[in-house]
Amino acid sequence: MKTILLNCDMGESFGAWRMGDDAHAMALVDQANLACGFHAGDPLTMQHSVALACQHGVSIGAHPAYPDLQGFGRRHMACAPEEVTAMLLYQLGALEAFCRVAGTELAYVKPHGALYNDMLADDVLFAAVLEACARYRAGLPLMTLALADNSRERRLAEAAGVPLIFEAFADRAYLADGRLAPRRLAGAVHHEPQRILDQALAIAQGEAFPDIDGKPLRLQADSLCVHGDNAESLAVLRRLRAQLDTLS
Amino acid sequence: MKTILLNCDMGESFGAWRMGDDAHAMALVDQANLACGFHAGDPLTMQHSVALACQHGVSIGAHPAYPDLQGFGRRHMACAPEEVTAMLLYQLGALEAFCRVAGTELAYVKPHGALYNDMLADDVLFAAVLEACARYRAGLPLMTLALADNSRERRLAEAAGVPLIFEAFADRAYLADGRLAPRRLAGAVHHEPQRILDQALAIAQGEAFPDIDGKPLRLQADSLCVHGDNAESLAVLRRLRAQLDTLS
Amino acid sequence: MKTILLNCDMGESFGAWRMGDDAHAMALVDQANLACGFHAGDPLTMQHSVALACQHGVSIGAHPAYPDLQGFGRRHMACAPEEVTAMLLYQLGALEAFCRVAGTELAYVKPHGALYNDMLADDVLFAAVLEACARYRAGLPLMTLALADNSRERRLAEAAGVPLIFEAFADRAYLADGRLAPRRLAGAVHHEPQRILDQALAIAQGEAFPDIDGKPLRLQADSLCVHGDNAESLAVLRRLRAQLDTLS
Amino acid sequence: MKTILLNCDMGESFGAWRMGDDAHAMALVDQANLACGFHAGDPLTMQHSVALACQHGVSIGAHPAYPDLQGFGRRHMACAPEEVTAMLLYQLGALEAFCRVAGTELAYVKPHGALYNDMLADDVLFAAVLEACARYRAGLPLMTLALADNSRERRLAEAAGVPLIFEAFADRAYLADGRLAPRRLAGAVHHEPQRILDQALAIAQGEAFPDIDGKPLRLQADSLCVHGDNAESLAVLRRLRAQLDTLS
Repeated sequence: MKTILLNCDMGESFGAWRMGDDAHAMALVDQANLACGFHAGDPLTMQHSVALACQHGVSIGAHPAYPDLQGFGRRHMACAPEEVTAMLLYQLGALEAFCRVAGTELAYVKPHGALYNDMLADDVLFAAVLEACARYRAGLPLMTLALADNSRERRLAEAAGVPLIFEAFADRAYLADGRLAPRRLAGAVHHEPQRILDQALAIAQGEAFPDIDGKPLRLQADSLCVHGDNAESLAVLRRLRAQLDTLS
Repeated sequence: MKTILLNCDMGESFGAWRMGDDAHAMALVDQANLACGFHAGDPLTMQHSVALACQHGVSIGAHPAYPDLQGFGRRHMACAPEEVTAMLLYQLGALEAFCRVAGTELAYVKPHGALYNDMLADDVLFAAVLEACARYRAGLPLMTLALADNSRERRLAEAAGVPLIFEAFADRAYLADGRLAPRRLAGAVHHEPQRILDQALAIAQGEAFPDIDGKPLRLQADSLCVHGDNAESLAVLRRLRAQLDTLS
Repeated sequence: MKTILLNCDMGESFGAWRMGDDAHAMALVDQANLACGFHAGDPLTMQHSVALACQHGVSIGAHPAYPDLQGFGRRHMACAPEEVTAMLLYQLGALEAFCRVAGTELAYVKPHGALYNDMLADDVLFAAVLEACARYRAGLPLMTLALADNSRERRLAEAAGVPLIFEAFADRAYLADGRLAPRRLAGAVHHEPQRILDQALAIAQGEAFPDIDGKPLRLQADSLCVHGDNAESLAVLRRLRAQLDTLS
Repeated sequence: MKTILLNCDMGESFGAWRMGDDAHAMALVDQANLACGFHAGDPLTMQHSVALACQHGVSIGAHPAYPDLQGFGRRHMACAPEEVTAMLLYQLGALEAFCRVAGTELAYVKPHGALYNDMLADDVLFAAVLEACARYRAGLPLMTLALADNSRERRLAEAAGVPLIFEAFADRAYLADGRLAPRRLAGAVHHEPQRILDQALAIAQGEAFPDIDGKPLRLQADSLCVHGDNAESLAVLRRLRAQLDTLS
């Protein structure tokens, strides 16, 4: 029986604008991916988010992004690889300042939004992200997408000496190769709680589940990316947490 | 015979915009105050500035500022003390990421522009700055202005457990209490190289020099803040470096 | 019988962050103060807000601010008067582009947050704001705070040739001179709907109402600043709208 | 004999950072492409640039960009077409506020950097740019790249009802189809003044000139994009201005 962790994007408020319901979600997850100021997360928000994570014993991951508040880091930006490495180092250091003050340290790195998608599609960019992890601290893991075949990611990460954490999604439909079905496709996002729970449990137990065409897909994942930003998603998250707790 | 260090604000380019002549000035100073992204200094600039400082064996100080690129951190912003502490922590961590990668660490903190002026004028803000230093790393010094009487700064710093580094200016006229003469006053800035060198040597040797009214002023300073952003200031800096080297 | 208009700060979302319930509030007010990108309001938000205002026949006022997204324009920034004039011109023009496209034009200017407070406290800054209005378009009115005595504002505005619109608040307690009671004072904000409605109707009818000390205060106002960002404030706004409609 | 205008990117300072030598270059050109705050150009810089253009009788074009100060608008950003239209409207309006105050108006629009390149490569984006021009003011021209065959641009512009201004470059080598040779190619940028002047005069007179492979290329251009940001480029610009003045 395999156990799986739950990770959640958090700390995405900015100044007067609120996003997410971190206060409730933090109690239910194992890993918090915290915004670092480039797509969200001003210094006070980061400080509060780190404190909240520590209070709940949740691991802190850096959630660095392209410098694009207006686009919430969701717009691809054509940045040179050395820019990407530098902007990641900047954000890792900024977030770790709050970890240090709270008596903890960064546990992993998970790029956000367009940067996450870009590193999956571009070896040079994936290497630039890995370089930031490796140079920042030996052994600092990178969280990336679990695919049917992660040999590309394993090969690049091994060359850089960076451990990988593989994450999967319970509320998203998958293509046959383990990539997420694009949101424009019908059925790309699961809305029925039971469907989400079924997929989560299958992934947690290393079992196959139906991809977007109904064909069986098996993913090896260490963590499930969950959402807890509204009452509905929190309700599903609570049930998922309870079920996973019975597994372990 | 007292020796004195030279510190200089550097790393103040941003993206396509260049500022300063760090490549030449870095060879002449002991301490580089590096911008941290809030008033100047994008991630690549910070990375290059840290590498340049390391290459020349120059100590790296964080030069954090209010979040104001458009105003270059020179405009007072009414920030709450806890915001100031958090924005300093953010910037210290961001800069230290590049130090870490270069095999060094932050040697001190010197707030920039309006934040520097504000901490001198407001005990609550000075305490907020000290708190950032103390919480970031025990023993991390704060660089502040040498005055005729620094008992206020010593008292607040002692309460916070933060060492102080006192800096003075060779090219600025002083008021009787050791504050800098406001730039709007005639004679507030020295332009004659010999005048600058004389004031520098007096301060370096702990001797009195004339304030803006010609009265003798004595400052106890650990470091002189110098400029090296154009041919003229670099020429003065070279002479100053040479003279200080003969002192020590 | 005097009639009064209702104005509301709107268009304060930014990118992925939502603020306010403009869709509901727009149907209930006469004047929409729209953010112009400096404290809130990205271009698409501005475009949508202008369209929504036009759809409801609501007058559009520019709601320009200091350049401070992180602080939502609420932090005082020490800007030179010519900077203030220029940053207002920039924001007026930016918002008017969307008005022009929608077949309408700016009806007035109401500075936001700290800039609003600063112009009330500083004649030089008030004149800088007036200069932006006057230079942008002859006859473009400035909305400012109705006080027990507005002779200062009238004198400065007359010198600049700028019409004034006076606004008052139904949900805020007042000092004797017609300034808003600072939020740190107990009772500074009215929460009981009936109290808010009573104060609104008194102001609308030019009658006296109790200031924070219970003494009668009379304000001459053209518009009431209202809020409609949550269910509670929308409910009060609906009642207020209905009562005002019976007056006119 | 055909006459040709000279256009130049200007107003690209930002806050404390200076770029270009607008004071000298403005006297030598016909059209100033002024930054609008998204890649460069704060409000005071925009105000000064507009005043300088008016003083020299130079036409003012808006030079809007992606929202990317750090990347100077040179990084491709994946923005939706409606975002592009809205961000152009915003910037056109902002710049025109300063034109209005100076008693003039926008003469044309020339997108900057990555946005310029993107509109040339993507019909949807070109249409989004045209829509901004058309909606902002009937008859407002768009400046775009003169190619060996501009039928694509003419077709799209005609559909939108937008006049086109075609620009060419005297200091850049061309591919056979009239696209600029990528800067990574050897010989992509001309440095010899005579070569630049020869190419300029050929284009001005509608004559063929050698492309990067030495084959003859003929471009129909209304304007030449020139640079005047340093002593060297200003010297070439002065010679070019003098030669063009003898032509007309």
